Amino acid sequence: MNNRIYLDHAASTPLHPEVVDVMQKVAIQYYGNPSSIHREGAQAKSIVEECRKKIASFIHTSPGQIIFTSCGTESNNAYLSSVIGSGLIRTVISSPIEHPAVLNTLKFHCKRHHVELKLLTPDQNGMVNIEQLEDQLRKSGQDSLVTLMHTQNELGTVLPLRDFSLICKHYGAKFHSDTIQSIGIEALDVTDLQIDAISGSAHKFNGPKGVGFLYIKEPSQLNPLIFGGNQERNMRGGTENTIGIAGMTRALELALNERQDRRQHLNRLKSKFLDGLQLSGINFEINSPLVDCSPKILNIYFDKTVKSDWLLMNLDIEGIAVSGGSACSSGTEKASHVLEYIRPTSEGRSVRFSFSYLNTEDEIDHAVYVLSKLLS
Amino acid sequence: MNNRIYLDHAASTPLHPEVVDVMQKVAIQYYGNPSSIHREGAQAKSIVEECRKKIASFIHTSPGQIIFTSCGTESNNAYLSSVIGSGLIRTVISSPIEHPAVLNTLKFHCKRHHVELKLLTPDQNGMVNIEQLEDQLRKSGQDSLVTLMHTQNELGTVLPLRDFSLICKHYGAKFHSDTIQSIGIEALDVTDLQIDAISGSAHKFNGPKGVGFLYIKEPSQLNPLIFGGNQERNMRGGTENTIGIAGMTRALELALNERQDRRQHLNRLKSKFLDGLQLSGINFEINSPLVDCSPKILNIYFDKTVKSDWLLMNLDIEGIAVSGGSACSSGTEKASHVLEYIRPTSEGRSVRFSFSYLNTEDEIDHAVYVLSKLLS
Repeated sequence: MNNRIYLDHAASTPLHPEVVDVMQKVAIQYYGNPSSIHREGAQAKSIVEECRKKIASFIHTSPGQIIFTSCGTESNNAYLSSVIGSGLIRTVISSPIEHPAVLNTLKFHCKRHHVELKLLTPDQNGMVNIEQLEDQLRKSGQDSLVTLMHTQNELGTVLPLRDFSLICKHYGAKFHSDTIQSIGIEALDVTDLQIDAISGSAHKFNGPKGVGFLYIKEPSQLNPLIFGGNQERNMRGGTENTIGIAGMTRALELALNERQDRRQHLNRLKSKFLDGLQLSGINFEINSPLVDCSPKILNIYFDKTVKSDWLLMNLDIEGIAVSGGSACSSGTEKASHVLEYIRPTSEGRSVRFSFSYLNTEDEIDHAVYVLSKLLS
Repeated sequence: MNNRIYLDHAASTPLHPEVVDVMQKVAIQYYGNPSSIHREGAQAKSIVEECRKKIASFIHTSPGQIIFTSCGTESNNAYLSSVIGSGLIRTVISSPIEHPAVLNTLKFHCKRHHVELKLLTPDQNGMVNIEQLEDQLRKSGQDSLVTLMHTQNELGTVLPLRDFSLICKHYGAKFHSDTIQSIGIEALDVTDLQIDAISGSAHKFNGPKGVGFLYIKEPSQLNPLIFGGNQERNMRGGTENTIGIAGMTRALELALNERQDRRQHLNRLKSKFLDGLQLSGINFEINSPLVDCSPKILNIYFDKTVKSDWLLMNLDIEGIAVSGGSACSSGTEKASHVLEYIRPTSEGRSVRFSFSYLNTEDEIDHAVYVLSKLLS
């Protein structure tokens, strides 16, 4: 067993060795600028366009609807700021437990463009009520943009995406989903989903940091977030990140090829972990939903005790890497906006355990052992 | 001699082998999310912060003034859109031969925020007249943002940056410079320059594509272009591109360590190339300035003949990679906005040759030989 046990795969993931190999090959061999018309440029361009075709096929759409970005956060920003700034909508409907890449983007641009921001009220497991969305859509309908994440990044709650997309379509609203935690884990067919836009980030599925993509159904309606040359069919300026794009594409290809096996493995690990906790005698509650939950994520609440106060730090000292809230809103042990929302008065400690195909059952056993040692 | 001669280093550059090594090491060993508080996160964070310190020291400023971005284009967009959207300025002063990453950003945001855009009129070598800038500053002074590139990316013209910065300061205007083509080639001391912001892009100095940085004197005044978590001290959301940041930093370190030697080599290559052209009997004119020019860039005009029409393509077939305009505005053989500006009525062909420490004198000789074969 490795002397560290990494259970924070919702924060970031190790690169797959094949991804590292592809990146190194592109780094050395394909240094041309994809916009240059000579051979070195054309070779780099072909890397980018082959990857675009593959990513498009993975989510069942056409290459012209894929824009490469620098991360999932940029993808969210690019779509949301463009729609809000377009003058075509008057209301944005979202939820208070969206990722900061969505929430902070909405707050800034809705204020700047005098667009109303309506936040629905998900339940204690992070699930949004579709009737509540429909009530809101009846009021603002066609002038609305709805943005709700597919897999909640702290709780693992999986939104029934197609139902939500169809209800938005029925009322003429645009629907975007932050699918950053679900890509590679859930099957995504954007054509069947009839969704307007989704966002992806390579480092969540064993690809590199610094690269992501945006699927957009109607790219001609996009105002770029980043203006520049004619890259990405005028939708995103800046020389294409050939190395990152190649790495992301290989990572997603591997994730999807092995998706069913990985899911089975994740489900096994999660069950084993929960069984272990139950047998250990530790007092805990499950923040994640029992159904409609990603096999990758399990969020657990531990009662407040002297021992739970520094639980994350003590787990780290014992060699186990986990998160409180998401990585993006952490840096300290304070509760995230998601935990504040679902447990406004609790004084204990919630911990997100997030698994990967790389984790072993032995690691799970050891993590339970360490938890029971620290908490009992 | 390699059977290809790459003379398009202003478009993009091959990665230095040491840069590839650093990137591979970070890709394999430092997979944590820099925002996570466990050991894997802290290790990734330390990579990012060590790089920030180094980049800051390279341009003589403090780490808090460096924001990592996904490219130079994003750096330009982030600063310019923030200042234009701030409500604090009424006029932007720039030039018609800025890079599209500046010009297109200015056009969109000035229109959206009802800010006047004044374009100065550089001379035929791309040099901006400082008296013309001062005339404009006398009119709009304190309410202005000035943005002028340091090294013109197609012509190589080097603006006397300190003189321009001081005149802006004198009139209370903000001054930003797109230094993407000059970083690593020119010495840049932002403290001595008293400049408000500069932009850098790793792939121009033998680092990877997909990463850049923004220096900003007063970071607290920045509205993020990309909203998200607390990354980059709340100035740029999105998980940090650890691999790219490490590669960029090593590339710039190498470029600055070897700067004088590389400059001497570039000057030698450029002189040899010009001497060769002169001896060859080819009819040509020099678009680049003879003084105040980057040693890296030489832009040459060839009279219109049947042979010059497809010159770029024929050079490529002969194994020589060069550009017409910049890569970013190309994809075709049509003249760039810069060439249209300096030679509005010329029907010949302008070609940008851009050199690197990697080019040899033999390559220069061969390039001249091929040119004379193609044109005579």
